Amino acid sequence: MKIALVQMDASQTGPTSRMAVMEQATAQAASQGARVIVFPELAVSGYGAGEDIASLAGGPDGDHIRFLTRLASTTGCALVAGLALKDGSRVRNAAVFVTSEGEVSAYYKIHLYGDYEKALFARGEQQPPLVTFEGVRFGLLVCFDVEFPERVRDLAARGADAVLVPTALPKSEAGAFIAGSVIPVRAFENQLFIVYANHCGADARFAYQGRSCLAAPDGQFLARASGDAADIVFADIDITAYDACRAQNPYLEEVMTHCSDLGTVKSKFIQREPDTGS
Amino acid sequence: MKIALVQMDASQTGPTSRMAVMEQATAQAASQGARVIVFPELAVSGYGAGEDIASLAGGPDGDHIRFLTRLASTTGCALVAGLALKDGSRVRNAAVFVTSEGEVSAYYKIHLYGDYEKALFARGEQQPPLVTFEGVRFGLLVCFDVEFPERVRDLAARGADAVLVPTALPKSEAGAFIAGSVIPVRAFENQLFIVYANHCGADARFAYQGRSCLAAPDGQFLARASGDAADIVFADIDITAYDACRAQNPYLEEVMTHCSDLGTVKSKFIQREPDTGS
Repeated sequence: MKIALVQMDASQTGPTSRMAVMEQATAQAASQGARVIVFPELAVSGYGAGEDIASLAGGPDGDHIRFLTRLASTTGCALVAGLALKDGSRVRNAAVFVTSEGEVSAYYKIHLYGDYEKALFARGEQQPPLVTFEGVRFGLLVCFDVEFPERVRDLAARGADAVLVPTALPKSEAGAFIAGSVIPVRAFENQLFIVYANHCGADARFAYQGRSCLAAPDGQFLARASGDAADIVFADIDITAYDACRAQNPYLEEVMTHCSDLGTVKSKFIQREPDTGS
Repeated sequence: MKIALVQMDASQTGPTSRMAVMEQATAQAASQGARVIVFPELAVSGYGAGEDIASLAGGPDGDHIRFLTRLASTTGCALVAGLALKDGSRVRNAAVFVTSEGEVSAYYKIHLYGDYEKALFARGEQQPPLVTFEGVRFGLLVCFDVEFPERVRDLAARGADAVLVPTALPKSEAGAFIAGSVIPVRAFENQLFIVYANHCGADARFAYQGRSCLAAPDGQFLARASGDAADIVFADIDITAYDACRAQNPYLEEVMTHCSDLGTVKSKFIQREPDTGS
């Protein structure tokens, strides 16, 4: 299955021009055979739009979700994007998985980073959904979430084959380490794929790392964007191609089998769902 | 505090010659100011000694422990080494922390790797101890253990400043990824130091990765041995030097504060001990 990662230029501000970029990128990715197209965190508003983010946020039937479902429906692709969502009176930092049939699965970011996000958003309090699309089980996280091994382990233990992560990783030494090392280690230690779509360039508040990437279960990059230019990068993911790697690095089997007596893993939050099999 | 990592040549077989290497390395590391000297997994027997390992294993007062306490006492340093220990009728793959006062703290490897280890050893079933030495809180793990984020998180949540890891990492693509990426990510995601002492060369059964390393809370290497030569490498660890890094990457605070309602972290096994403070 071909995945497209859309690395967006943060200097392009305002939802109108950003949605035009997203529409064009979707058409291009679809024409090149992508089945799932992944955009960054707060892709529609831009990450650095500050208080405008709340006023732009709509509900599950708002303009931005309708925009995404229209693109999915037009191209037949699934779209994954970060955007602000109203959840009653609260504003959430969400990632959505949108199919061409108009199904929308939403996840609200659990681990808000820093004062900026904590002032803008209410923290998510629910496990991310797993979405099965064309036989692949996708989990959703947002940015800072993926830096916590607990979050990816939870999805892996529930049966995820790949974790899709809209992000807004800053240009910093820590940012370079996260894109270059933390992301492939999350893939390796859970023997799944991580799809990490970032911004590049800068808006009025922040500068971004770029380096959107897709890491495979062996910790190698299958796709990687540059540090500074808007781009669409592609990779094919084949979940059965890494069976030998999983046998050599049986982290999930080991931790599910041998840690229950130690109380670490089989908690309420981390448990295999009945329908995931294997 | 200066730490020495002793990368041992696996082609040197037999406990007599290996103990001679360890004695010489201890003297050299002590003369260069090391306070803690860390040796690989199964340092005394060699990792690939097979069934000989069980017959060489002694108890907590056996020859090999007495050898280590003598070296610690002679030099005034703390020694950390992997060795096989008898625990009643069972043989454990242990790491010990030995002080010059003759205090011995032992940890039994929880995550045995592959059929080779599972045939030789009984799996550990207890949390690793934390050892406070000259003001630094050290945790112990062995090899495969450190590849599980749960194991390092447990020690970090209990207050570890540094985790000492005797290892026997093989020469393989996965081995290169573990030494180069997994180890620094474990340091970064817990904002502590990881000290990872490996074999190099080959014995009759296995070839080893070398690349013993000490990774800092920012994910950077403070010391790193080559891929193929026996060596002693040194690094100074200063636990307060990374306070700004911890403030920028508050993983532990976040996961301790905001995940209890999600049931992930504050399990029986992962909880801050009352005496660790901060």
